[in-house]
Amino acid sequence: MSASDPYPSRIGADPQVLPRKDPVVHAGERKRLDGPLSSDALGDYERRGFCVFDALLGPDEVDSLAFEARQLARVRRDDASPKVIREPGDDEVRSIFEVHEDEELFRAVVRSPRVIALVDQLLGAPAYVHQSRINFKPAFRGRPFFWHSDFETWHVEDGMPRMRAFSLSINLTENRPDNGPLMLIPESHRYYISCAGRTPEAHYERSLRRQEAGLPADSLLEAMVLDHGLETPTGGPGSAVLFDCNTMHGSNGNITPFPRINLFVVFNRLDNALSPPYSGQPPRPTHIASRSPTPLS
Amino acid sequence: MSASDPYPSRIGADPQVLPRKDPVVHAGERKRLDGPLSSDALGDYERRGFCVFDALLGPDEVDSLAFEARQLARVRRDDASPKVIREPGDDEVRSIFEVHEDEELFRAVVRSPRVIALVDQLLGAPAYVHQSRINFKPAFRGRPFFWHSDFETWHVEDGMPRMRAFSLSINLTENRPDNGPLMLIPESHRYYISCAGRTPEAHYERSLRRQEAGLPADSLLEAMVLDHGLETPTGGPGSAVLFDCNTMHGSNGNITPFPRINLFVVFNRLDNALSPPYSGQPPRPTHIASRSPTPLS
Repeated sequence: MSASDPYPSRIGADPQVLPRKDPVVHAGERKRLDGPLSSDALGDYERRGFCVFDALLGPDEVDSLAFEARQLARVRRDDASPKVIREPGDDEVRSIFEVHEDEELFRAVVRSPRVIALVDQLLGAPAYVHQSRINFKPAFRGRPFFWHSDFETWHVEDGMPRMRAFSLSINLTENRPDNGPLMLIPESHRYYISCAGRTPEAHYERSLRRQEAGLPADSLLEAMVLDHGLETPTGGPGSAVLFDCNTMHGSNGNITPFPRINLFVVFNRLDNALSPPYSGQPPRPTHIASRSPTPLS
Repeated sequence: MSASDPYPSRIGADPQVLPRKDPVVHAGERKRLDGPLSSDALGDYERRGFCVFDALLGPDEVDSLAFEARQLARVRRDDASPKVIREPGDDEVRSIFEVHEDEELFRAVVRSPRVIALVDQLLGAPAYVHQSRINFKPAFRGRPFFWHSDFETWHVEDGMPRMRAFSLSINLTENRPDNGPLMLIPESHRYYISCAGRTPEAHYERSLRRQEAGLPADSLLEAMVLDHGLETPTGGPGSAVLFDCNTMHGSNGNITPFPRINLFVVFNRLDNALSPPYSGQPPRPTHIASRSPTPLS
C-alpha cells in the first residue's frame, strides 16, 4: 500500500469500515436525464447501490444467448484455456471469461446501443470493459459465492484506483429464489470494508473457484444486513441487475435442477484505467482484468 | 438384499423408479377426523407428501427452545460425543442428535399432547421416536443437504421395513427463502427411487456431513421437478412442516447472517420397528436410529 492509497485493504490490520470517497452516479445533470434508466431507477441505484432492469433483452435475443452459453459450457468443458474456470472439487464449468472479445453474440450485446447508453448514463465519460464472463451456476451442484465487494478485489489485486465502475448482470435463465440468485446488501456501497489478512501469492488461480482473501468480517456483514436488509432480485431471462462496483453481494449454492446462467460485464471509466495492483503483487492476467482499455463507443 | 425386500436400493444396479407399496395416512376413518390437522390439510399431506402447520408452537415456547438450541451449539461445540456432527471442513455444529432423550425442553415438546395427537392422526397406531436432532444451518457457512428420501436411507442403512413413518420439522428460527430453507418435491412420496451404487462401509460417519450413497440420479430428480414443481415452505419460528418418510427433499447452503435452526423428529410405528439393515452391513448407532422403541403415549 502507498501512503496515498484511498482504499487500503489486506494490509494485515483488523477489518475496518472506511468512508466512500467517490460519487455513485458519475454523469452530470444533463446525461443523468438522458438514458434508459428513469429518474426514479437512477435515484434508486444511487441510494441503494443497485437497480433492476426488467427487460433489457427481448425473448429472442436472450434465447440465442442462453443457447450459445450452454453450447460454450459443453464445447469448452475440456478447454485448457485459463479463461475457463471449473467448480471446486468438480469439473463442471463455473465461469468463462472474456466472452465480450471471443464470442460474437456476446461481443454484440455488450456493444449494443442500449447498453452503451446505460454506461453513459451511469459513468458519464468514455468507458471500457474491465471484465466479462458468463457465470454458470450449474444445476444440482452449483457452489456459492461468498459476500464480497468487487471493487475491493479490483483495487487490491488489479490496481483499479477509484470507484468509477459498475457491473451489469444479465439473466440468461430465470433467477429464482431457490437457484442461488444474486443477493445484495442495499446501501453497502456507501462504505468501504477494508479486509483483514494479506493476499496470498497467485490468489486468483484459486479465488475464482473459492475465495481466500478479501472476505469481509462476519460481524460487519451482519451489522450491514441488520441495518439495511438483504435484497434478492428475481427475474426472468432478459432481466438484468446493475450494481455499483462496491455493493456487497454474494449468492448461495444451487441444488435445484435449474441452472442459473448470467452474463456479467464490468464497465470502467477510461480515466480510471488500472495502475499496478495495490497489493504490490504482479497483476492478474488480462482476461480477468483488461490492461489495454479500448473505449466502447 | 433379501428376495422379499419390498424397497431394494443400492444393490449395484441402475437407478430405478418403483411403486410405493404403503398408504400415506395410516389412521382409519375415525382417527383421520380426530386430530389437529384439518381434513383439508390431511388431504394435502396425503396427496402431496407434506403439509405446513403454521403455529405449532407459541412464541414463548419457541423462544425458549431457540435459546436452548443456541446454547447447546456453544456448550457442545467441543463435545467429542458422536451425537454432535460438525460442518464439513469446519467445526461449526451442524446437528445434535437424540435431543428428545437428552434435553429436558426437547423431551417435553416431542411428548406434548398436540404432537402426540398429530402422530396419532397420521400413523393411527402406537408409535415411537426413530430419530431426533437439532439441525443448525449456521449463518454464513451453512452447507447444503442434497436431495434424498429419508426412507431410502432408513431402509437400507437402518432396516426400517415399510413406509410407516413421518418427519416433523419445527422451525426454531425463521425459514427464509434465502437461508437454505427446506425444499420438497410434491408427490415424490408416491414413488420409491432406488439408487445406484452400494453403501460404503461405515457410511454414516461421513454421510451426516456429506452424503456419498443413496443419492437419487439427477435425471430422475429433474423429471420429478418438471412434473410436480418444487415447494419451499417459509415460515416464522414455531411453524412446522410435516412430511412423509419418502418425500424427496433437500436444502441449499446458507451465506446469510440468519442461521436456520430446526428441531427434526421422526415418528415411526411400533409395528414397523427396525430389522437388520437391508444393506447387510452393521446397523448405525442407536442415537441415529433407535433400536429399543418405547411407545410415546
